Amino acid sequence: MQELIQLVEQKQYQALRGRLNEMNAVDIAGLLETFSGGQAVILFRLLPKTTAALAFSYLDPDAQEQLIGVLTDRELGFVMEELSMDDAADLLEEMPAGVAKRVLAQTDPADRRIINQLLKYPEDSAGSLLTTEFVGLKADMTVKEALNHIRRSGLDKETIYIGYVTDEARHLIGVLSVRQLLLAEERQTVGSLMETRVISVATTEDQEAVAQVFAKYDLIALPVVDSENRLIGIITVDDVVDIMQQETTEDMQKMAAMLPTDRPYLRTGVTELFRQRIPWLLLLMVSATVTGMIITGFENALSSMVALVAFMPMLMDTGGNCGSQASVTVIRSLALGEVRFRDIFRVIGKELRVSLLCGVTLAVANFLKILLLDNLLLGRGVSLTVAVVVCLTILCTVIIAKLVGCTLPLLAKKCGLDPAVMASPFITTIVDAVSLLVYFGIATSFLR
Amino acid sequence: MQELIQLVEQKQYQALRGRLNEMNAVDIAGLLETFSGGQAVILFRLLPKTTAALAFSYLDPDAQEQLIGVLTDRELGFVMEELSMDDAADLLEEMPAGVAKRVLAQTDPADRRIINQLLKYPEDSAGSLLTTEFVGLKADMTVKEALNHIRRSGLDKETIYIGYVTDEARHLIGVLSVRQLLLAEERQTVGSLMETRVISVATTEDQEAVAQVFAKYDLIALPVVDSENRLIGIITVDDVVDIMQQETTEDMQKMAAMLPTDRPYLRTGVTELFRQRIPWLLLLMVSATVTGMIITGFENALSSMVALVAFMPMLMDTGGNCGSQASVTVIRSLALGEVRFRDIFRVIGKELRVSLLCGVTLAVANFLKILLLDNLLLGRGVSLTVAVVVCLTILCTVIIAKLVGCTLPLLAKKCGLDPAVMASPFITTIVDAVSLLVYFGIATSFLR
Repeated sequence: MQELIQLVEQKQYQALRGRLNEMNAVDIAGLLETFSGGQAVILFRLLPKTTAALAFSYLDPDAQEQLIGVLTDRELGFVMEELSMDDAADLLEEMPAGVAKRVLAQTDPADRRIINQLLKYPEDSAGSLLTTEFVGLKADMTVKEALNHIRRSGLDKETIYIGYVTDEARHLIGVLSVRQLLLAEERQTVGSLMETRVISVATTEDQEAVAQVFAKYDLIALPVVDSENRLIGIITVDDVVDIMQQETTEDMQKMAAMLPTDRPYLRTGVTELFRQRIPWLLLLMVSATVTGMIITGFENALSSMVALVAFMPMLMDTGGNCGSQASVTVIRSLALGEVRFRDIFRVIGKELRVSLLCGVTLAVANFLKILLLDNLLLGRGVSLTVAVVVCLTILCTVIIAKLVGCTLPLLAKKCGLDPAVMASPFITTIVDAVSLLVYFGIATSFLR
Repeated sequence: MQELIQLVEQKQYQALRGRLNEMNAVDIAGLLETFSGGQAVILFRLLPKTTAALAFSYLDPDAQEQLIGVLTDRELGFVMEELSMDDAADLLEEMPAGVAKRVLAQTDPADRRIINQLLKYPEDSAGSLLTTEFVGLKADMTVKEALNHIRRSGLDKETIYIGYVTDEARHLIGVLSVRQLLLAEERQTVGSLMETRVISVATTEDQEAVAQVFAKYDLIALPVVDSENRLIGIITVDDVVDIMQQETTEDMQKMAAMLPTDRPYLRTGVTELFRQRIPWLLLLMVSATVTGMIITGFENALSSMVALVAFMPMLMDTGGNCGSQASVTVIRSLALGEVRFRDIFRVIGKELRVSLLCGVTLAVANFLKILLLDNLLLGRGVSLTVAVVVCLTILCTVIIAKLVGCTLPLLAKKCGLDPAVMASPFITTIVDAVSLLVYFGIATSFLR
């Protein structure tokens, strides 16, 4: 890498061209991203045209925009011709209006129509992921004809390994892999060989569900149909791998009280990170007013028993941890399609039993800890009554926390919200208030 | 599904066979899992043999063990013959020793040798994922010979779409796709067409890194080589999709203070859930002793200023949220390979600036909240000194929390630990103690 940068700076273009020829388009894209527009375009022009277009498709949107700014109209037209339809639609979605207009102007009218069609599908839907460049077959073709058809038209297809069989009205009636074609006799017909139990998704399907279908059925491509089972396009597994990474990142960001972004961390600006993080921090901080009010309400009890304060952080953290264990388990199970809303009573039943086990164990352990560690070793002199109050609170808090933690993501899903938001930070804020109420409630009734 | 269960109960085997023939092997596996051993084996015997073996490979380990228990030796032998090598090795890894012994006894000796070889690779390494059933080509083959070779040997291969070219000493020297073969002239040679810039991984590579290579280069299969670049086997993209789901689930479980498991939630027993959750809960509860001690140490200050207690939960939660935002961001970036340990100073610099922005915003917002909401609206009568103390504490806590949150995962990675453990619960426990020390420190110096 260092060496390549040096070659660029020393303008050794001949040597550079040789080195670039040995590189993979993905790595070339990585290299282009490290240069500014002027230098990047020099590199770009040293590449064979198809490699250049392929490398362009792997650039991040910022680098794509920069490069488009310095490309000639002809160069841009060539890139657009080579891009697959789904990549072209993604590109236009990311570009500012002015750039998108220029890009579309350099695109072949037929392609432009398809791209505009793809752009109409909602973001994150199967429709927004599909490409129209698939191998279409007819049931009355022979194996030989099908293979010849693939040979003739295969160059521009996203994958040639699965052929999609449609009838006259474009209804999807079967799929046939190149593997089956190669292993069959030349005279057999596509109709006799094709798999008619076709797994497909609707254009409106969410991309997370699309990823689940790929994972469940071990597919390399999945056909997308409209509401009348007409074949619109296909989604390929390489896009699904990217989606899975992106969905996971988004879920984790939401679970940690951040607004999701798909920009890599080191390339995200400080103010963007700030904007991503501050909204939930503010909201959660203000909602802690409730815990403050609860404490103020019990101020008299507290001033006569300051010893109670020492256990507050432990109680709140334990409650928060228990709640986030349950919520993260349910959030992940929802994302994998293992749990649905109708399982809510099974989930509650399970969490109730787990929380009883956890609660009793933690209460007993804490009682022993107070007697042995706090009193004997550290000499903190915690009274037996306080110890009992703390342990009873643990038991109640754990149960409540696990129940809140497991139900909120399910309810969120039911209401059409993203369950991932119902993770640790949100649960903690609720559980804090509840555990303090329980704590002071038990304490005042015991110490009265 | 309901209908199929009824057919089994009414022993309508003819109708059942018809229905099963229309189903996909993955869905048949799902159906088999809902039955007990006796009924499952009846269904299993109604299936065509290859479908039966394929469905078997999709069963979860518990169902596989149950079914093996009721299969005859001959049936078991047939299943093992049909399983691909990586699935066979996975099966043996999951089965108890007695069952594994019986399975191996019914396996062809040549296969047994390969399986034993695969079982030697460490769990979660590329070696443990690979299968030896790939298409091997030689550089001097013509396109026609290569296609004929694939036709003859393709039936048992995991994928036929990529051929791997090796020299006499089994060194991997090139790859060639069926797409390229189909689009080329019959007389061209494999050597002239093959891609020599081969992307491969070592047998010792971690499965998370393997998934990253697939995501980066949009592959459908990846060759695995030993330390001398000899081709050992290949990993296919369908396995990678499963690994990505599994790795994500494990990461999220660790981030929520649970021991990882790959068993679906609704099929996990209560005691297993308990065992998965209680260790971290206990550890974190006991480590809260430190916060307890800090509070006890400032008991005198507290008893004269009980008002301070009311802000403790808010301060601890805000600190915890800030810390987990930073830690989750870094954990995810590490998992995606976007950030490495050597970036530690860039990360710290970025987080420092973000935390200053967040800290100042939160402190100012909190000051206004105390004046307007707490004092004016709720009439809690918070003194100006307390308000200043709280706001200064927020600023310090946010900065410390973000720094702790971003450095611990990096340090964990450097020490060979899993960074995912350094998420919210762990960070919160540390940040709690720090924020209380800061709070009481500032409070005593202001209120003295």
